[in-house]
Amino acid sequence: MIKKKKCAIFYVSDGTAITAETVGRSLITQFDDIEFIEKRLAFINDVETAQMAAKIIKDTPSDYQPLVINTVVDIELRKIIHSAGGLKLDPFNRLLRRIERNLQIKAKPVVGRAHGMSDSYAYNKRIEATNFALSHDDGMNLNLEKADLILLGVSRSGKTPTCLYLALHYGLKAANYPITDEDLDRMQLPAEVMQYKDKLFGLTIDPFRLSQIRSERRPNSRYAELRKCQMEVSDAEVMFHRNQISFLNTTLTSIEEISGKILIALDLNKRLY
Amino acid sequence: MIKKKKCAIFYVSDGTAITAETVGRSLITQFDDIEFIEKRLAFINDVETAQMAAKIIKDTPSDYQPLVINTVVDIELRKIIHSAGGLKLDPFNRLLRRIERNLQIKAKPVVGRAHGMSDSYAYNKRIEATNFALSHDDGMNLNLEKADLILLGVSRSGKTPTCLYLALHYGLKAANYPITDEDLDRMQLPAEVMQYKDKLFGLTIDPFRLSQIRSERRPNSRYAELRKCQMEVSDAEVMFHRNQISFLNTTLTSIEEISGKILIALDLNKRLY
Repeated sequence: MIKKKKCAIFYVSDGTAITAETVGRSLITQFDDIEFIEKRLAFINDVETAQMAAKIIKDTPSDYQPLVINTVVDIELRKIIHSAGGLKLDPFNRLLRRIERNLQIKAKPVVGRAHGMSDSYAYNKRIEATNFALSHDDGMNLNLEKADLILLGVSRSGKTPTCLYLALHYGLKAANYPITDEDLDRMQLPAEVMQYKDKLFGLTIDPFRLSQIRSERRPNSRYAELRKCQMEVSDAEVMFHRNQISFLNTTLTSIEEISGKILIALDLNKRLY
Repeated sequence: MIKKKKCAIFYVSDGTAITAETVGRSLITQFDDIEFIEKRLAFINDVETAQMAAKIIKDTPSDYQPLVINTVVDIELRKIIHSAGGLKLDPFNRLLRRIERNLQIKAKPVVGRAHGMSDSYAYNKRIEATNFALSHDDGMNLNLEKADLILLGVSRSGKTPTCLYLALHYGLKAANYPITDEDLDRMQLPAEVMQYKDKLFGLTIDPFRLSQIRSERRPNSRYAELRKCQMEVSDAEVMFHRNQISFLNTTLTSIEEISGKILIALDLNKRLY
């Protein structure tokens, strides 16, 4: 058996470290053969915290190679962190310099700004959208004219987490409507929902997986029975087809991917011009 | 009046474009004097979609300079996108090559993997945590022994969005408990909550802002009165102090920052070794 190489990857930032972490995560998915361990070192914004970060990096066990993704802006603090050794990766500085050259304008380095409150309008929109998603979850409050989109699907097909993600990330007002047994019997969605046809998007799921998820919630119930799940899913899909509602199978799809595809399908992606 | 320079920034990816967007957002916060417009071009994973993306970039109005943040892996598709012109920024390739050299191992490029389902254990944990946050919102279900953390605060201090964010992003089971008038009268939290002292974190907020938020919800109510908000906030802060519960003012803090600071305060940050 070949022993896997081991690597400790540090996300160092004067803010939340979300940018460093996002880049780092993307990078490590490209190396299957390395065993990575990750450590977030956030809010490194003075000499004391920088020295603490440097100590943590320096103390990496010797069988792990340290990689340091560093987005700290202040030069003195960067030096302290870099003194700890390891491979230093900066996803930022070079790109900043290239943009400066191209646009002939100087960047104004501001510590910890990237995920701060620089845009309080967008921030309030996200909070508002989250409250909207919560108050329009699971078919509650069928007052849908304010919704940016409405997700449809049988119970436990992934509607709620997707709505919350769309709200928290994109400030979109996402409602969801759980397809009921009555809807399936009639093979028809309620008129209150159908009137917003342009906002509808369906989620579907593998019936075996659905049965599993429902079983965890209500073991040995009719609700969780495989046959019932198969019928619900297949009827819901027929209904989506008939009504020309775009839909997506969530079984092997992450919340990020589902959300991205919904944005494209409902044309909620356009913010340009 | 000096006219601001204008710039159209494109986030191009074979996956969700979240990495490209995160990096781009961080970059543009460093340029106050430029008017940016952003466009996400996600799931660019064949010749047809690449040509479509290239056309969109090429069609940028002439008063906007195009910047293209491109994380597409496939070389042929990259060429198509780059043929559209604009400043090409790749936050990835160079870092990948440096890691390869440092670790003496080849990356295995996989399209759209970064935010995919590569880690279904983590994925299920996030969904589970989201369900936990929903079923433990607003003091519901005081069955807290399974919680990773419990947020405390007066009504509308920002507990719910923070819990949902922690669940969706970090897979943490975040419950929240709204401090009631009775708790404030007694200046004491319920024993069911206090027994989990190591998991507690308080949120506080500027009383003027709180009054504003509550007024939008229930105009002209006693609940929204400034004097009531001032008293609640000040009593809650005294209670946090007395019980040595760490707390944070959310007024000028983004959900990302609040979450990051909670992770550090409760030592939920450690995933290393």
